[in-house]
Amino acid sequence: MATRLLTAAFQGVPGAYSQLACRQLLGEGVGTLPRETFEDVFAAVTGGKADLGVVPIENSLAGSIHQNYDLLLAHDLAILGETRLKVEHVLMCHPSASLAKLAKVRSHPQALAQCSDFFAAAGRSRRIQPIPYFDTAGAAESLAREAPADVGAIASSLAAELYGLKVLKRNLQNHAHNYTRFLAVAPARGATHARVARALAARPGGGRPLKTSIAFMPSRNQVGALFRALGVFALRDIDLLKIESRPNPLSPFEYWFYLDFAGGMGEPRVDKALDHLREMAGRLKMLGSYPRAEDAPAAGRARKP
Amino acid sequence: MATRLLTAAFQGVPGAYSQLACRQLLGEGVGTLPRETFEDVFAAVTGGKADLGVVPIENSLAGSIHQNYDLLLAHDLAILGETRLKVEHVLMCHPSASLAKLAKVRSHPQALAQCSDFFAAAGRSRRIQPIPYFDTAGAAESLAREAPADVGAIASSLAAELYGLKVLKRNLQNHAHNYTRFLAVAPARGATHARVARALAARPGGGRPLKTSIAFMPSRNQVGALFRALGVFALRDIDLLKIESRPNPLSPFEYWFYLDFAGGMGEPRVDKALDHLREMAGRLKMLGSYPRAEDAPAAGRARKP
Repeated sequence: MATRLLTAAFQGVPGAYSQLACRQLLGEGVGTLPRETFEDVFAAVTGGKADLGVVPIENSLAGSIHQNYDLLLAHDLAILGETRLKVEHVLMCHPSASLAKLAKVRSHPQALAQCSDFFAAAGRSRRIQPIPYFDTAGAAESLAREAPADVGAIASSLAAELYGLKVLKRNLQNHAHNYTRFLAVAPARGATHARVARALAARPGGGRPLKTSIAFMPSRNQVGALFRALGVFALRDIDLLKIESRPNPLSPFEYWFYLDFAGGMGEPRVDKALDHLREMAGRLKMLGSYPRAEDAPAAGRARKP
Repeated sequence: MATRLLTAAFQGVPGAYSQLACRQLLGEGVGTLPRETFEDVFAAVTGGKADLGVVPIENSLAGSIHQNYDLLLAHDLAILGETRLKVEHVLMCHPSASLAKLAKVRSHPQALAQCSDFFAAAGRSRRIQPIPYFDTAGAAESLAREAPADVGAIASSLAAELYGLKVLKRNLQNHAHNYTRFLAVAPARGATHARVARALAARPGGGRPLKTSIAFMPSRNQVGALFRALGVFALRDIDLLKIESRPNPLSPFEYWFYLDFAGGMGEPRVDKALDHLREMAGRLKMLGSYPRAEDAPAAGRARKP
């Protein structure tokens, strides 16, 4: 019930995969606020227009989204939750259209490329032309507006639902293992922080073991700086879950390290490790402690038969 | 001279940023072979249709391109070179058109988004409509074919050159620090390997210090496995240049680690560190030793004034 009162900002138009991630995190009752850019999502949360923001941080094919790490470093927000969304592309059309009549399919070029096997297979009988669009959900919306008889769209199941479109095929993507991990970011403290944390804790999975995300930069670029930094975790038997280095865009000989590890702030072992890390880190930014999403089910790398 | 005989496969159509990276690596005389997907680029090299492939591996805003790491793991190719390309978006039109008449600009949605400040500024006097296209170079090619008087494209300077288009504005992108790092991949041994290595060594920068890229998976997911693995480098004073963990898509509780470090295979210190790492790695794949690209110049993170 508490989640019904929350508003989550996301990047994209209604029906975007990010909006689906908002629902996966907080249930169908969550209010959602579409924003044009990731910067706008962070601004909506810091400005109080939204209680939280839901942004993608990592895709299994495309890798980490550095831009959102930059925004986490630049804002005083905390990660309070995460969810792993399977990117399931759905082929849809206006209720008055049909698969047999489709001559064109609109979507974002990346989604069209991820469904290239479908276009190749269709091409053996008749050609279906892929048409580039700004975004997947926008392509779906255009079908609802124009009601064309021979045009389809590739977008999320949520887009089909929101725009009243007919689902023609599910799981149109070539690769089965396309997952995107999303983060829920909220003010780092205060009443909104507490409300978002409570709502996430009340959801299924809200009681899972905690993980913690940090970013740090060694005080000097000594050989072995990272090795020593990881020692503060290894010597305390704290499991690392993710590590990534990134040259500081402002100073290419300095590196930021992004680290996720098992355990939450407030646990003595974790707090001692972080104190120890502060001794050797030039900069350390706590990004948040939050319940760990279930790992993606083991998905075959093979293409669908 | 030797480079004139080489053919480099790249993903995209002529004029793509990847083709510009081929030239930056091997000079204007290099032959280039456009391919539709990254898989096709790797297949062109393993099948002998191209001597090398040039693929993006990392972008300063978007992060690492995991798909190309996957392809490196799946193929018996070696990285023989790298280059860092500044993504400079150019606004162009048909020679018969002009900036004053532009009503629409075609490009890939990501490039259009990266130039949103231009569209916002133009909108204060008159609206210029962004039009999504499959790729930047394809948008440029369409102008050459259709010769529209009121349509422009955003693409690389190479696309303007190849399609005989008029350059209206350079550096149209909002952010100054958008860099993509490209790798040159070639057969891991044999005559083509030697030819590509010789050609790269003869280029400016071909004599720069070596770096080495590897991928490894610890033999067991012990706490501290990564710490111990990094010890083989730290204890030998070998500098780490990049580290990234990635859950194995086939088995989400296993991790691959991608590592770049200073030094080349054949140097005693490096060979001893790798022998040491083999003792504790379940799997180790050598991706290549190659001259290190110059670091990107320190670029302001601020938007252009």
